Amino acid sequence: MGVVDKSLWLKEKDYMRKRMLEDLDIGYLDPDIYHVLLAIFMREEAFPISSCSGRITIVDAPMPWHRKSSAVIFKKHTVVEEHEVLSVLRNSPPINRLWLVATGPIFHISTLTLREALSILRIAREAGMKHSGILSISRRGILVELKTGVRVTILLRSRDFVISDLQEAIRATNEALLEGKSRLAKLYDLLLSSSRSQ
Amino acid sequence: MGVVDKSLWLKEKDYMRKRMLEDLDIGYLDPDIYHVLLAIFMREEAFPISSCSGRITIVDAPMPWHRKSSAVIFKKHTVVEEHEVLSVLRNSPPINRLWLVATGPIFHISTLTLREALSILRIAREAGMKHSGILSISRRGILVELKTGVRVTILLRSRDFVISDLQEAIRATNEALLEGKSRLAKLYDLLLSSSRSQ
Repeated sequence: MGVVDKSLWLKEKDYMRKRMLEDLDIGYLDPDIYHVLLAIFMREEAFPISSCSGRITIVDAPMPWHRKSSAVIFKKHTVVEEHEVLSVLRNSPPINRLWLVATGPIFHISTLTLREALSILRIAREAGMKHSGILSISRRGILVELKTGVRVTILLRSRDFVISDLQEAIRATNEALLEGKSRLAKLYDLLLSSSRSQ
Repeated sequence: MGVVDKSLWLKEKDYMRKRMLEDLDIGYLDPDIYHVLLAIFMREEAFPISSCSGRITIVDAPMPWHRKSSAVIFKKHTVVEEHEVLSVLRNSPPINRLWLVATGPIFHISTLTLREALSILRIAREAGMKHSGILSISRRGILVELKTGVRVTILLRSRDFVISDLQEAIRATNEALLEGKSRLAKLYDLLLSSSRSQ
């Protein structure tokens, strides 16, 4: 416990680097996040496993955090406009409840050492990603999650309810998304300046 | 780095135990959580620093996660009734926006060893507290946060908007609170059974 297998870890880093380049080729990578992933790869003792730059979704679920019996019926990594949400509301009568959800950026990062995990956590906190922590430690690496508290969930519609002021709901949701993106930009700046001083 | 000062840690555990007993005397402790705190104190290498059993608040803030320029104008650790929320809506015209927020249980725990931190994380995940992790490591201890993804934030009111179906909003909020409490109950059961097998 607590000891990472270095050769296994290096192999995984190499594998993930190749996969990222493939994803980039296919156009599968979210352009808002590519430079941040590179800045993490550049660190000697870290690599990103998965990430999201922040997004707005519409979810059909009893409660917005449910995974079972839930469906994401709309997803976008940039601000939404009223007509987009209206068209979802018109075309998708909910099975459960429709929630408009904005979430901030999130990263899962593998580090080789505990020291590197703690360095990244300090940087993330300074960037406003205050809900970050070490999730697990195993032979394969130290798993770090970077996350903000940025989250809006607005009930749009249920069987006998439709939101009255959609504009205000969308305004709050877009504000949340943009606040997340600005923390992502700060994370990038801090990663770069910490690499320079390494 | 990475090494906890055992005598300092034991002193802090002792101090926190006394403080908890005082809080209990004053009636300051949330009754939904006392037994869980005891179960954590009973573990040789852990003690709780702060906790919340889950709660419903009404917050006046531009966005629900803002701390600056925000005010908690209502707080309760049990389900809310419509008349309670109505009376807040009547008596508190919002400076920014009024958000009805339900959050699941949360714990901050100090452990003496990394092994104990990882054991507690495993238990927490099994109890459905999937957003848990190690926040920091220092001479004073390893800081572990246990948290669920249970969270509802509903926009109740802004300058020119009042929610139309308050009943549905309250129903969803109470459901969220109760789901949090049931994960807390599961955490307690798992802590007890893991102590017995230690």
